[in-house]
Amino acid sequence: MSHDVPSPAEDESVAELDYTDPLYREAVVDLLGALAYGEMQAFFRLAADASMAPDNYHRSEIAEMAVAEFGHFRLLRDRLIQLGHDPEEAMTPFVEAIDGFHASTAPADWLEGLVKAYVGDGVASDFYRDVAQYLDPETRELVVTVCSDLGHSKFCIESIRQAIKADPVVAGRLALWGRRLVGEAIAQSQRVAAQREPLVALVLGGAGPDLGAITRMFADMTDRHSERMRSLGLAP
Amino acid sequence: MSHDVPSPAEDESVAELDYTDPLYREAVVDLLGALAYGEMQAFFRLAADASMAPDNYHRSEIAEMAVAEFGHFRLLRDRLIQLGHDPEEAMTPFVEAIDGFHASTAPADWLEGLVKAYVGDGVASDFYRDVAQYLDPETRELVVTVCSDLGHSKFCIESIRQAIKADPVVAGRLALWGRRLVGEAIAQSQRVAAQREPLVALVLGGAGPDLGAITRMFADMTDRHSERMRSLGLAP
Repeated sequence: MSHDVPSPAEDESVAELDYTDPLYREAVVDLLGALAYGEMQAFFRLAADASMAPDNYHRSEIAEMAVAEFGHFRLLRDRLIQLGHDPEEAMTPFVEAIDGFHASTAPADWLEGLVKAYVGDGVASDFYRDVAQYLDPETRELVVTVCSDLGHSKFCIESIRQAIKADPVVAGRLALWGRRLVGEAIAQSQRVAAQREPLVALVLGGAGPDLGAITRMFADMTDRHSERMRSLGLAP
Repeated sequence: MSHDVPSPAEDESVAELDYTDPLYREAVVDLLGALAYGEMQAFFRLAADASMAPDNYHRSEIAEMAVAEFGHFRLLRDRLIQLGHDPEEAMTPFVEAIDGFHASTAPADWLEGLVKAYVGDGVASDFYRDVAQYLDPETRELVVTVCSDLGHSKFCIESIRQAIKADPVVAGRLALWGRRLVGEAIAQSQRVAAQREPLVALVLGGAGPDLGAITRMFADMTDRHSERMRSLGLAP
């Protein structure tokens, strides 16, 4: 699967999308609401997890990631307002799933926090890149802007590799942790998917609420997650 | 006392300051280290306190303040690096006092968090503005830049006034809380002052470690704090 985002000219069906289609509008507002709440919570969770950093240098690096997430929240919220929607209302349907994800994946220590930051950044990048191709040009531009600002987690890689080198035993624990993170993310996403048909159709590129297509999307996300785990020196 | 920052031309003694004076250099590095650590901790504490917000709108407003503080931290840290100093080393002497301040002033609820955000922002603005007049032009420019970006706490005023209107009993509790905040800030500042003579001399505009001058500075800070408490509808 290519990770490139096609330009509107390459895909005529995209150019036809507009907000007068009530189902498309509902799906886009859902998407922006889910992403906005996800980014806001990423800000707060990263800021909280930074307290476990071994020094102020690492603490400030995690804070940099948190600040970037807040910038994304701002863009998404402002877009909702521009479209005439109340951001609070648009975010509400996703609060339970996103809070549930974080409640069940609170890092026990600094290394788990680093892996969560790295894995979360990667999965978010994949998702933004995938969904961008199915959006109208304006929403696509916003999503691509946010996506191009992701990837602040590169500093995590070196720290995690060093920790594994210093104590190879942690590799097993972190590999397990990585699987748990993706497992919980998929569980919560499936919960949302069961309740938001137009959003699912949008994310799948117009396909109906097809269980097979959803499962394939998660399988593809998991494959790319596994690649990232390997790049950290962890068994996927 | 005027809150205006005089331009270098108004005060010739300032223009003569430079980093070849080892005492001045030590004091400036201390000042930048203390402010940098203060701003970084402000970021983390505001982000943590935001969890008590009644809704996502207020949560994001506190996050906006936190993000602004982190921007100040970046400027101060980069200035230390530019001057050839390790930010971690420059911040270390102030960790105990600043952490101690926050440990003894953890807000019990959202309203206490709002008052702390508002009071902290105000006291910081006063301090930056006061100290700016005693600095060399480059450091002064940095401090004035940070100072001009303070004041993100205005949204607190309306929320606090509404809470007092809805339940006048909270006014007494919040007035006490405001006094405690300033009391702890002064206690921790005095602790630092006892150990950092060149910094004290700088902050006092070249006066020696004169106990009377320090006390007058705190009295002046307290007066301005009292004005702000009155503007919230709280007994100072």
